[in-house]
Amino acid sequence: MPQLAISRRTRSTAFSDRVAASGVSAYTVYNHMLLPACFVSLEEDYRHLKSAVQIWDVACERQVEITGPDAFHLIQLMTPRDLSRQQIGQCSYAPICDDAGRILNDPVVLKLSEDRFWVSIADSDILLFAKGLAIGMGLAVTVHEPDVSPLAVQGPQADLLMERAFGHAVHRIGFFRFARLAFAGMSLIVARSGYSGQGGFEIYLEGADNGATLWDGLMAAGEGLDVRAGGPNLIERIEAGLLSYGNDMTRAHSPYEAGLGRYCQPERVHCVASDALIAEAQTGPARQIRFLEIHGAPLPPLADGARLTHGGQMAGFATSGAYSPDFGVNIAVAMVERAFWNEGTSLDILLPTGARKAYVSGQPIKLTRANRAPIPLMPA
Amino acid sequence: MPQLAISRRTRSTAFSDRVAASGVSAYTVYNHMLLPACFVSLEEDYRHLKSAVQIWDVACERQVEITGPDAFHLIQLMTPRDLSRQQIGQCSYAPICDDAGRILNDPVVLKLSEDRFWVSIADSDILLFAKGLAIGMGLAVTVHEPDVSPLAVQGPQADLLMERAFGHAVHRIGFFRFARLAFAGMSLIVARSGYSGQGGFEIYLEGADNGATLWDGLMAAGEGLDVRAGGPNLIERIEAGLLSYGNDMTRAHSPYEAGLGRYCQPERVHCVASDALIAEAQTGPARQIRFLEIHGAPLPPLADGARLTHGGQMAGFATSGAYSPDFGVNIAVAMVERAFWNEGTSLDILLPTGARKAYVSGQPIKLTRANRAPIPLMPA
Repeated sequence: MPQLAISRRTRSTAFSDRVAASGVSAYTVYNHMLLPACFVSLEEDYRHLKSAVQIWDVACERQVEITGPDAFHLIQLMTPRDLSRQQIGQCSYAPICDDAGRILNDPVVLKLSEDRFWVSIADSDILLFAKGLAIGMGLAVTVHEPDVSPLAVQGPQADLLMERAFGHAVHRIGFFRFARLAFAGMSLIVARSGYSGQGGFEIYLEGADNGATLWDGLMAAGEGLDVRAGGPNLIERIEAGLLSYGNDMTRAHSPYEAGLGRYCQPERVHCVASDALIAEAQTGPARQIRFLEIHGAPLPPLADGARLTHGGQMAGFATSGAYSPDFGVNIAVAMVERAFWNEGTSLDILLPTGARKAYVSGQPIKLTRANRAPIPLMPA
Repeated sequence: MPQLAISRRTRSTAFSDRVAASGVSAYTVYNHMLLPACFVSLEEDYRHLKSAVQIWDVACERQVEITGPDAFHLIQLMTPRDLSRQQIGQCSYAPICDDAGRILNDPVVLKLSEDRFWVSIADSDILLFAKGLAIGMGLAVTVHEPDVSPLAVQGPQADLLMERAFGHAVHRIGFFRFARLAFAGMSLIVARSGYSGQGGFEIYLEGADNGATLWDGLMAAGEGLDVRAGGPNLIERIEAGLLSYGNDMTRAHSPYEAGLGRYCQPERVHCVASDALIAEAQTGPARQIRFLEIHGAPLPPLADGARLTHGGQMAGFATSGAYSPDFGVNIAVAMVERAFWNEGTSLDILLPTGARKAYVSGQPIKLTRANRAPIPLMPA
């Protein structure tokens, strides 16, 4: 693996010195900022995440703060999800689309007050889209990136660690809800959310200067719980069916293609994508995200993706993939053409080492193997 | 140095397999894409760049293509530089600013025809700003990222290599001009430009499938010229006074602060930043880019920047820095407060290893040490 040349442009975070001291071995760059991708190894980080609790530096989930009388109007222009009933204290997963109905980002929107929102973004400069729309339409809003650094606590022991740090109040925070709680002299927004299927929280630190205080305090609260530094884990997030913008869907795809139709009510809202999405909803998407199982020996992570064929015909593209130690099979996310997307369809995946059989699954492996009715991993 | 975890989100380029085969040792991520940052070592890459010729994978300089009846109107809304006299075949360095007069990017704009432009961007998603403005104002344009991959040929032998590949026609291309030339069955836009002070060209490959053909053809043309794979070099670009958006200036700065005043005619153009920049031009900026010399033993690259003080007072911030083997001194770029920006001012730079003296210079070291009248490194 090549090295990463770090500069001010690949911004360090409020927690970078602690991450370095914890032995980070690989980063990725996300929103022009360092995101820890590996500590010990992908497999060992995964095993630990699924059995204990980890502190994640996800400061790269930058906030686009939108305030002012037109704040809600601007947010709703950007997403086809009907946010009219979003409550203060609620987090809403809301794809952002352009006027062609293509995905520009898939953030979580936090409603702080009636005229103040944080758009907690995936990896693209949504601040520039919001500014462009606001300037172009003369909206009464301010759009800026506040000094807010999310830190995630994820894993089966996350609730216990958080209870020690914040008290029993954390148990009253519902899924995709947030509350303001006190810790170490700070007032912090704490949400029950995070980019894993293990449960946990995201803490929104306001003021990077307090990064070390928060990190050290949480590590101390985790004593005896085998708490470690970690980060979003490729294997675990594919098992859980969590998509990655830029990997699994891009500006080339619609939210219907990304399987995000239940977050789209284009006919009900005034959004720039409405016309395009209403039209697409009538025909249905031509391709859609599916989960794959690939039998045979463990494969290395699919860094560049891989083409899928069926009887020599182009059938789609696998976008992320890894070997799942717990399920004992290679798993992948793929964008699959309509003719081939039915559950159980057998495809050929064209890997650098040769072709293998890949089977289309209706659900992420975490759900199919649990042998129960599929449940949504994102809130309704 | 930590490793870089590569995924589809950190996009590979049309040339990535050739870059890997050439022994890249470090990447950075730029516009969600791999940019080679080091092959042998920073110093050896530098020595070679200044004495021979290098092929650079700068496909991460993505193009935002703007076409349609309102294309010029949209471009001019985004930049305070008066582009009304830009000619077809001309490249114009044009800072892009928001309505507060803050820099969102510092691209080169290529005028392909009266209603078709490529905005060859630095590291931020200007496509989203252009889309936001266009949607918000209902402009008759299309905005998209075409399949265009710039490849640079830089170094003192660049003209000779390019003559071998493209013939004598390359000599007729003026600085910051481009022409369409034939090579290996391809028709390529070739510009005399590039992110070094060594001279050279940027070739805009249309169609990533031809990446290997172009790369291999140029390497063959460079036989006997000690041609190598390379990339923008931290030391050389600071010597030459080339700024880096995201490092030396950010969304927090105005073009006047970045020393880009001669690219700003806010009173003459209809641009979203006009009011803010006209106001700032009257008072002058409160801080501005300066070049520093730091005496003493060679320093490692300034990955995180360093604070500058003067008699204990905050005087500015050094944003990029490295040791220059050829000039035998540490050099840096800094944003310096007005009270301390005069040439020759002695500042203290606060490094992790302790404070050192830093001296303010009016010009990049390449110009001051050449003992001649300063010449602009960017075209007028």
